[in-house]
Amino acid sequence: MSIAPETSVHPALRIAVIGAGYWGPNLARNFAMSTDWELVAICDRDLDRASALARKTGEPAVVASVEELLREHTIDAVAIATPARTHHGIAMAAIAAGKHVLVEKPLADNSIHGREMVEAARAAGTILMADHTYCYTPAVLKIRDLLASGELGEILYIDSVRINLGLVQPDVDVFWDLAPHDLSILDFILPGGLKPVAVSAQGADPLNSGKSCVGYLSLPLENGALAHIHVNWLSPTKIRQMVIGGSRKTLVWDDLNPQQRLSVFDRGVDLGRQEAVRDDVEDRKGAMISYRLGDTWSPALSEFEPLGLMVSEYAASIRAGRPAPTDGESALRVLSVLEAASRSLAEGRATRDEVNHPILEEAL
Amino acid sequence: MSIAPETSVHPALRIAVIGAGYWGPNLARNFAMSTDWELVAICDRDLDRASALARKTGEPAVVASVEELLREHTIDAVAIATPARTHHGIAMAAIAAGKHVLVEKPLADNSIHGREMVEAARAAGTILMADHTYCYTPAVLKIRDLLASGELGEILYIDSVRINLGLVQPDVDVFWDLAPHDLSILDFILPGGLKPVAVSAQGADPLNSGKSCVGYLSLPLENGALAHIHVNWLSPTKIRQMVIGGSRKTLVWDDLNPQQRLSVFDRGVDLGRQEAVRDDVEDRKGAMISYRLGDTWSPALSEFEPLGLMVSEYAASIRAGRPAPTDGESALRVLSVLEAASRSLAEGRATRDEVNHPILEEAL
Amino acid sequence: MSIAPETSVHPALRIAVIGAGYWGPNLARNFAMSTDWELVAICDRDLDRASALARKTGEPAVVASVEELLREHTIDAVAIATPARTHHGIAMAAIAAGKHVLVEKPLADNSIHGREMVEAARAAGTILMADHTYCYTPAVLKIRDLLASGELGEILYIDSVRINLGLVQPDVDVFWDLAPHDLSILDFILPGGLKPVAVSAQGADPLNSGKSCVGYLSLPLENGALAHIHVNWLSPTKIRQMVIGGSRKTLVWDDLNPQQRLSVFDRGVDLGRQEAVRDDVEDRKGAMISYRLGDTWSPALSEFEPLGLMVSEYAASIRAGRPAPTDGESALRVLSVLEAASRSLAEGRATRDEVNHPILEEAL
Amino acid sequence: MSIAPETSVHPALRIAVIGAGYWGPNLARNFAMSTDWELVAICDRDLDRASALARKTGEPAVVASVEELLREHTIDAVAIATPARTHHGIAMAAIAAGKHVLVEKPLADNSIHGREMVEAARAAGTILMADHTYCYTPAVLKIRDLLASGELGEILYIDSVRINLGLVQPDVDVFWDLAPHDLSILDFILPGGLKPVAVSAQGADPLNSGKSCVGYLSLPLENGALAHIHVNWLSPTKIRQMVIGGSRKTLVWDDLNPQQRLSVFDRGVDLGRQEAVRDDVEDRKGAMISYRLGDTWSPALSEFEPLGLMVSEYAASIRAGRPAPTDGESALRVLSVLEAASRSLAEGRATRDEVNHPILEEAL
Repeated sequence: MSIAPETSVHPALRIAVIGAGYWGPNLARNFAMSTDWELVAICDRDLDRASALARKTGEPAVVASVEELLREHTIDAVAIATPARTHHGIAMAAIAAGKHVLVEKPLADNSIHGREMVEAARAAGTILMADHTYCYTPAVLKIRDLLASGELGEILYIDSVRINLGLVQPDVDVFWDLAPHDLSILDFILPGGLKPVAVSAQGADPLNSGKSCVGYLSLPLENGALAHIHVNWLSPTKIRQMVIGGSRKTLVWDDLNPQQRLSVFDRGVDLGRQEAVRDDVEDRKGAMISYRLGDTWSPALSEFEPLGLMVSEYAASIRAGRPAPTDGESALRVLSVLEAASRSLAEGRATRDEVNHPILEEAL
Repeated sequence: MSIAPETSVHPALRIAVIGAGYWGPNLARNFAMSTDWELVAICDRDLDRASALARKTGEPAVVASVEELLREHTIDAVAIATPARTHHGIAMAAIAAGKHVLVEKPLADNSIHGREMVEAARAAGTILMADHTYCYTPAVLKIRDLLASGELGEILYIDSVRINLGLVQPDVDVFWDLAPHDLSILDFILPGGLKPVAVSAQGADPLNSGKSCVGYLSLPLENGALAHIHVNWLSPTKIRQMVIGGSRKTLVWDDLNPQQRLSVFDRGVDLGRQEAVRDDVEDRKGAMISYRLGDTWSPALSEFEPLGLMVSEYAASIRAGRPAPTDGESALRVLSVLEAASRSLAEGRATRDEVNHPILEEAL
Repeated sequence: MSIAPETSVHPALRIAVIGAGYWGPNLARNFAMSTDWELVAICDRDLDRASALARKTGEPAVVASVEELLREHTIDAVAIATPARTHHGIAMAAIAAGKHVLVEKPLADNSIHGREMVEAARAAGTILMADHTYCYTPAVLKIRDLLASGELGEILYIDSVRINLGLVQPDVDVFWDLAPHDLSILDFILPGGLKPVAVSAQGADPLNSGKSCVGYLSLPLENGALAHIHVNWLSPTKIRQMVIGGSRKTLVWDDLNPQQRLSVFDRGVDLGRQEAVRDDVEDRKGAMISYRLGDTWSPALSEFEPLGLMVSEYAASIRAGRPAPTDGESALRVLSVLEAASRSLAEGRATRDEVNHPILEEAL
Repeated sequence: MSIAPETSVHPALRIAVIGAGYWGPNLARNFAMSTDWELVAICDRDLDRASALARKTGEPAVVASVEELLREHTIDAVAIATPARTHHGIAMAAIAAGKHVLVEKPLADNSIHGREMVEAARAAGTILMADHTYCYTPAVLKIRDLLASGELGEILYIDSVRINLGLVQPDVDVFWDLAPHDLSILDFILPGGLKPVAVSAQGADPLNSGKSCVGYLSLPLENGALAHIHVNWLSPTKIRQMVIGGSRKTLVWDDLNPQQRLSVFDRGVDLGRQEAVRDDVEDRKGAMISYRLGDTWSPALSEFEPLGLMVSEYAASIRAGRPAPTDGESALRVLSVLEAASRSLAEGRATRDEVNHPILEEAL
């Protein structure tokens, strides 16, 4: 699959944005600008808010309820940017009405709801897509290409760090706040998606805020590889870095370095094949190891607005009748890992009062 | 305790260095240069190697065995730089002969041996010291001072990263190779030493080398704090960084940035006291949180050779009859955490063939 | 003088923005948001452009000419954001009508025009202010404070680098495009303003574009200090860095490092006083020199929109009847240095065909 | 010419090192280790110093004077590491005796002396080589290769910065202390050597130390290119960076970044050809400009000791009877530019008391 912005030759699809709060305006603006789409309506219980947004996005209709929207407007698709606990209800109604559905992350408030949405959309033959915006950035698209092309070889380890002085939030812990970014990216770039064989979380709440503010997530993958995510709300320095170690090359993504966001290192450790039978294990081990100290390469990245590409991909998926690049199943995998992480934390807490401890979780 | 190099007014103490291999020459050179010490003998089964070293360090005597050394030479102390599995035997013999003992890390090949050494030295009234060289660097001494002074407030989390393209070694995994540095530093800087309430390790051997090449170590501390260590032999970039988050300030130690090795950030999240009783939990939580965005300060560090200070501290501890700054108990704590980490890895492997998984370990 | 945003208790001053092209909208938006100001009119020959801007800024009147504006609208002040060659005519008309004038940089197309504007405003008792936006950023304000307080001691040298892959422009060379930023900042932060004793420019046009794309500007200051500016359109890496070396401390401003924009180094070279008469010159020189290797300090910076502060300062200057922080004379000094730089380049070119060479210029 | 360390199959050449002070030991050690050379003698008026050095380098003969050396020892070549003012006398005597000569930088105390040395060696048919050590580092060799291969296209500009908190020296100013490194590197990497069409220096002595502590050197090259060097003893931060802008690519050498010392940017500004005749100059100019925003590439560098390669190249040049890579003429060009810079500074001072000002100098 090639992901690229392109001009549409099709008639525009008709979309309504549901939710005019924090994220809805970004969606509405991008749908309004896209030649793939015609923004037909803004839906929000707060009609003032909906009207204010409508004025900035070409004056689509304003409606106060999803029922009204589905009943009175001819639309092909909806984009849901409401609180997570309402996603399931709205999406199920829209799917039942035969609409395609784009949902802001997380897909739903729990994976049971999420799975129902995925199955309903499949049964109805409509597209269910998750707005994993990061996946449509130039850097992540390039990483996905590099992994797909085999440039890095086999994946050995992935280490992701996403830390900064963050808002300690009332509803969610640091895992649910920050790790969805890392998890949705991993699911997007790994050929076959993110399918850890286990999930283990370590968290700390040293401020006694009632939720983890520092978190580590270990995700053993198949073939002995290990993905690890560090999320932290208490760090005075901001880091957004992912290292993807491969058997051929290693990629470093430093998202806060605009001058060299991606670096591909042709450096690594090679273990040779055990061609010769040797008596002395120590020598053999030593003999098998070699180092590559080759060039580093930093690919140029094009610049475009990720949300613009995302709405364009939504249209392309609908027209082609194929799953979206970040489809419902992808979002469901992310949700399941987050739930497994929470169970890992909670059962640790259950068995040992003072500290969170890791447990092995059957994931997914 | 103040740690500083000083000129001795005492008669020099008499030392022998045992082991003339990789590390012994560094020790011998520093003992030879020190006014606190008189280097009396070099002991190594390989007499050629011992003689070569003796020629560079003022021509001390050369002896082939510990027995001969203890029998025929008048010494106050020994410094042991032999393979780890021999530490216990040599140290016990030296202690039995009433000598003070400095041991290269690790203290011993297992904690039972290590504990015997600690107890024997205590019973004999001799000093048992570990050569945790990193603890005598200007940066670590400054960090210890800052923590002791309360400058950072209460410790909330510690995140240490020590990764590079490393030698995949025949004998030890990445935990035993690299983590002793982080652990001995933590033990040195934390008031009261490193006393985790649990130890959990995640490792990966994606090259099928027979041992972990990528490792994560979680060490929940008392009061909800969490220490975490990332060690990695497969990283094309070299990082040596430790972040110590405190309730007042946060310290970042970037050992590869000679221009600003230490940074103390007066930035952080504060949770206020629940002075007012509020009905709405969400609001109350929100109201309690505030951010400090103050100055950053990078203290100047003096420059000196860590090993020079270490041998000087060894002499000072002997003369004062007080435990060394990195004494046997400290080294035993480090050893115990490493053993707990290995058990964590092994039991995971036992219960699940393909991946290492974390387990909760009673530590120490 | 303390520069700080504050809420106004005065009736709003009435302003018109002249020019609705590239920069005018930024000015109009900030005047519209300010409680100090009432945006009365947008003036542009292109009425469509003016109307479009008016719709976004609270629907002020739209007028097509400065004459109409001055004749038909009651205003206190104007803000001019038209091409540089028109600044003089518009400003002189506005001053003649008793209006205060804010001018986008450069003040005028030449210093004769600029001087007329300064003198006319002085005679009329109106405020003439230059929109040197950079001077109202948190970093530059902090630098100005540090220099004013004597924190750095006496200024020894200033080295400013402003390079990136820039637009090779049809009208101006790299000096006129980029150096105004550095020069207006220098004028703002140096106590007494920028008063070089000479101006010397070196430029290169290796692409044969007809104008310098790489430029160096040397500005010897009083007391033996030297300011130097490097501007470059052809650099693949982007650097915005200014080093201000003082006799007590040295400040480094790295504008592209949001995590540590300012660093104050308590490091430097000290030459002692020649208290003792010594025969041996070499020893004496050696003896007089010492080094400070003290702490580094990075002050926290507040965050606000520079243009918001600038329009607020414009109002405050008018109300207090005092010169603006970046007044007409400041802008005239900047203009004069740029003209001297051009003469330095041109006379070099005149006497030597192939290369630009430096000449000494009587400045200002 | 390919520069690479190789094992010699020739009989070793016989060398004497003259001068056992600061730099001589480095030379003696490398000659002693080389299979190309036999270190025959150490020559120093201070026989104790010479003897101490001889003990560490295989016990060559020790002699007190050059006359004695040339009279009593069979040697092929000498290496001179004595104070600059003695280079001429020693070298002329050695050349007269038919010896090859390696001279520590600077070649001589003035260019008249230097020229005599070059001409004497040419007449005698002996090799005169300058120890421009930096030119034998992996980074500089790679840069030279890249320029020779045309990878960067035509050189547009070179900007070199070499600043740190330096020792204010009794004998030399910052130009003579630091710029020889930059100049010898430029001479080495530029195809055809360093041949500026003018030399202009700006210096500042804000500490009143009697010599420039901050210096800028402008070196217009042929074809409109410009080289510029910034040297500074008063900078609290250490920078060693050279940018070489080419018409095809731009190279950045950051010598203090061991993880990415060289970066080659496929980024730049292109001015197209004026294929179409256009009326509107402004549009035409605009149309002609385009930007390349391609990949960045960081070549791997091998690791070896530069001095080891240098002594090996000395031997290879002698055996092949070809000029050394850093031959006497190269050193003479460097010396001439330094002298021109000093004249530029001095004449400025003569005509204007307070400040150094730039003058155009006929160079070389």
